[in-house]
Amino acid sequence: VSARLGRDPLGPEFKLIDRLADRLPAPEVLPDAVRAGLRLGIGDDAAVWRLPDGNLGLLTIDTVVEGVHAYPHERPEDVGARALTAAVSDVAAMGGTPFFAVVALQAPRRGSDETLERLYDGLAEEARALGVAVVGGDVVDTPGPLAFSIAVYGTCPDGRLWPRGGARAGDVLAVTGRLGGSRAGLELIGDPDYPPRSDWEQRLAERHLRPRARVAAARALQARGGVHGAQDISDGLSSELWHLALASEVGLRIEAAAVPLHPDLERYLEARAAAGGERLDPVGYALDSGEEYELLLALEATHPALAEPDLGGEGPLTVIGAVTAGPPEVILVEAGGPRRLLPGGWSHRGADGGKA
Amino acid sequence: VSARLGRDPLGPEFKLIDRLADRLPAPEVLPDAVRAGLRLGIGDDAAVWRLPDGNLGLLTIDTVVEGVHAYPHERPEDVGARALTAAVSDVAAMGGTPFFAVVALQAPRRGSDETLERLYDGLAEEARALGVAVVGGDVVDTPGPLAFSIAVYGTCPDGRLWPRGGARAGDVLAVTGRLGGSRAGLELIGDPDYPPRSDWEQRLAERHLRPRARVAAARALQARGGVHGAQDISDGLSSELWHLALASEVGLRIEAAAVPLHPDLERYLEARAAAGGERLDPVGYALDSGEEYELLLALEATHPALAEPDLGGEGPLTVIGAVTAGPPEVILVEAGGPRRLLPGGWSHRGADGGKA
Repeated sequence: VSARLGRDPLGPEFKLIDRLADRLPAPEVLPDAVRAGLRLGIGDDAAVWRLPDGNLGLLTIDTVVEGVHAYPHERPEDVGARALTAAVSDVAAMGGTPFFAVVALQAPRRGSDETLERLYDGLAEEARALGVAVVGGDVVDTPGPLAFSIAVYGTCPDGRLWPRGGARAGDVLAVTGRLGGSRAGLELIGDPDYPPRSDWEQRLAERHLRPRARVAAARALQARGGVHGAQDISDGLSSELWHLALASEVGLRIEAAAVPLHPDLERYLEARAAAGGERLDPVGYALDSGEEYELLLALEATHPALAEPDLGGEGPLTVIGAVTAGPPEVILVEAGGPRRLLPGGWSHRGADGGKA
Repeated sequence: VSARLGRDPLGPEFKLIDRLADRLPAPEVLPDAVRAGLRLGIGDDAAVWRLPDGNLGLLTIDTVVEGVHAYPHERPEDVGARALTAAVSDVAAMGGTPFFAVVALQAPRRGSDETLERLYDGLAEEARALGVAVVGGDVVDTPGPLAFSIAVYGTCPDGRLWPRGGARAGDVLAVTGRLGGSRAGLELIGDPDYPPRSDWEQRLAERHLRPRARVAAARALQARGGVHGAQDISDGLSSELWHLALASEVGLRIEAAAVPLHPDLERYLEARAAAGGERLDPVGYALDSGEEYELLLALEATHPALAEPDLGGEGPLTVIGAVTAGPPEVILVEAGGPRRLLPGGWSHRGADGGKA
């Protein structure tokens, strides 16, 4: 969902994106009023411009294609809710407060209206929970699969933006929530025996199917300043760390033992190994878990939020490492010593890969 | 492209849209800051909210699906350019100045990167011409056809919005440009003998393939006030008139002889009849021509722009009728007398209809 128009050496789809972005007009040809307001264009999670009162406007867009980002047997409510969370998460991860969303729906010619109505029910439920107004949209029919894009507008106080390139040497790295559950849930949903029978399997599936954008945590952090850069964890923490390191031109040093794991993750990985699957390291597994929609933050080491368990009901933060002077690098410190962490995790589901 | 989330009795797809819109949260459940700022939500060409300086922010989204809104044999540059014009046109038709666009691209798995690059070339060319910055986006792959959505943000002085529901009894109705060429061009493109050989056929094809959103005309009009309501002509003038009449709760009276016709239209319709096709009335044909992206305006009868031939290089305006007191009705006055004009025109291309 988050293959951004960004200059990123993280995979072939990023190279296509760069080639497309290179074709767009240089800012110099734009009218003065447009150019003067622009703060951040292509390359971050949202476009950013200056509003007349000095606040910043943010705009982002995200797409869901059935069969790629959603399974045909998923509840349509979950597909709609998750898509809104993914788009809103991009605004929250910039330090923004989301306000409005517009939805462009491609309705399959042979699809049922009930599916679309249920998709909107989930979207509406999530909009209510996130405090976002769905204010417009567009429905077209398609000979292809069900697909839809959601654009989200939000605002952010000037000087308080959390750009991808904002991490500074001396910052600590922290994350919201506990990781790995989304990837495990996705594997369970893809299992021929789905739906799972046990409570913990069901929890993992729900963790994947209905994540919640960390709007409340972002708001609690935003009010205080001291956050310099952020990413939402959509592609997997290992990839997000590289995005942050490259854009900020800093080194990142992660303590493996500090990465917070989903409470059902070790049980899941044991069951997976007992059933004949590969035995996987929980931390490595969690580092490559996508669609978590938790926040990765580079913030001041003395930030008061680090000691606050509540954080708008979405705390606590967990410190997982530190930002060091460049060049761009991501080091994982394990019991056996430090090693370079490679970007992995979520590319997308579907015939050509799923987890990359 | 413009099947809006609007409450409209104009066709079955509008009914689906209403059912979907009904599922969204009531404004009462939204945070005060979100609710207080909202001016127009679902039901017009763009969402509208109040910016801190009293101007209005506008956001719209439009989708193009290959095989529905674009032919596979079309130049990708034209597909990209036309899509941006369609989205920007929605902002211009509200009285807004477009600033930024974000693009969400669904790239077919078996498609070529060259197609996508050419699509972006067209999009970039149009962005340059319209003075719009493409500031972000998202690329995902799809097992379906090439498709993309474009969201456009713009602003408008408060009190100067041109809502669909703003037409007043006593206003005159005027249009930019000359109509009918887009529909003729579309028919020529769909012809097995395409591309056409004669200059005038080529002009008509180009009229369909590369329309230009009337940003300059809108700006020239906006500066003076006196425009009360507007629509861009995406579905065909007959349908846009009904949208305006229903939302404004007014009657509209159109003089058939006043409808400005594309200079090549009569020649085209003659050739069409000579080749064994049905003989069609040029005015009726032009009234149902979609994807024109001209502006339909309800404005003060004494508006100075009515006497201005230039209008930002996109004039003159042509007065085609008048707004009368409700109930909602659209009357076409022909040589034989007045009759009720039925909404027709563009639904979309593709297997299930093309022209409705």
